[in-house]
Amino acid sequence: MATPVTVYGPPLSTAVSRVLVCLLEKDVPFQLVPISMAKGEHKKPDYLKIQPFGQVPAFQDDEITLFESRAICRYIAEKNPSKGTMGLFGTNPLVKASIDQWLEAESQSFNPPSSILAFQLVFAPRMKLKQDEALIKQNEAKLVKVLDVYENRLGESRYLAGDEFTLADLSHLPNTQYLVEKANRAELFTSRKNVGRWWDEISSRPSWKKVVEMQNAPPQ
Amino acid sequence: MATPVTVYGPPLSTAVSRVLVCLLEKDVPFQLVPISMAKGEHKKPDYLKIQPFGQVPAFQDDEITLFESRAICRYIAEKNPSKGTMGLFGTNPLVKASIDQWLEAESQSFNPPSSILAFQLVFAPRMKLKQDEALIKQNEAKLVKVLDVYENRLGESRYLAGDEFTLADLSHLPNTQYLVEKANRAELFTSRKNVGRWWDEISSRPSWKKVVEMQNAPPQ
Repeated sequence: MATPVTVYGPPLSTAVSRVLVCLLEKDVPFQLVPISMAKGEHKKPDYLKIQPFGQVPAFQDDEITLFESRAICRYIAEKNPSKGTMGLFGTNPLVKASIDQWLEAESQSFNPPSSILAFQLVFAPRMKLKQDEALIKQNEAKLVKVLDVYENRLGESRYLAGDEFTLADLSHLPNTQYLVEKANRAELFTSRKNVGRWWDEISSRPSWKKVVEMQNAPPQ
Repeated sequence: MATPVTVYGPPLSTAVSRVLVCLLEKDVPFQLVPISMAKGEHKKPDYLKIQPFGQVPAFQDDEITLFESRAICRYIAEKNPSKGTMGLFGTNPLVKASIDQWLEAESQSFNPPSSILAFQLVFAPRMKLKQDEALIKQNEAKLVKVLDVYENRLGESRYLAGDEFTLADLSHLPNTQYLVEKANRAELFTSRKNVGRWWDEISSRPSWKKVVEMQNAPPQ
């Protein structure tokens, strides 16, 4: 049996759960080291050696140590082309470029407003922080514009980069889960026919259901 | 002679200039279609067909149309492995993963504060918009933390991803150029020994000097 790879960070983190769902899609065995951010473990010298920005996740296999969730996902997919979901990062250069384009759209256009909304609407109340209403309104408006583009795109193809589920779709799971299930913002997605259909499909994948289970498990 | 590829967008845009310097590094002939944002050309239906978010750049070759500057750069480098700067996106999977990691660090950690600062300090005055002092202060503090991580990293290796100039370094050129040359923020970079040395090296490349020339050319 291959040595499992190691992921450092709590599954509740959107960036950590992005890596976990990728590992599950690619059938790559892993162990999770649940760095406690409440205890400041992500700022300790030993951790900073593998993640110099003091963020989660970090990733380690026998060949390399990496940070940045989307870079880790690309690496996992490139290293395991014939395992699990075969087309996760494309099987030819043109499809791969299209996946990369929509993965960047997630990173540059979808992630900034959706992660601010997830923080303001889900985590700020849990941390007893005051919500910033103006910031919420401003980022909802930004997200609406992005979802309008997605609605058109998902009218042309089943998934963002084409007919197969890829890293581009996968990368949207963590923030969307919080907005739909915990932030009372399901309508942003379900009111758009194609986006709603897409969300149903991608969030029903066994890999993602498993990650949500890990997120909902009581802390050990 | 190969048909030149097409880049849509003004060279003054940081995202457009990122693609231009990549094309020059890889010796790929291109033509530039300078979409006028002042005239709203980036929001016209024909342009939105190739860039649905209404942003610049867009990119076209005989095989594919793409948007998102970092995805375009990856595509150009992958398609032309033996042209121009050979190691721009690595020559083996582990180096490539390291490049990808630092390219994501640029995209996620360096770009947000530096593009806000470039807008506030360079473009807002040109557009006669009021500068937001609190936002400037907040983002300078964020950028300082990122540059402290870079300072350590660039003490270990000549460039961010290792001993060669790669896409990870290249991607920092556009925003840093504005901060150093137009925003009176050179000291953020030059006060850090390794970052200063790195900036001198990467900004002296003939490819980047050519892009700066294009940026400074009078509009036609």
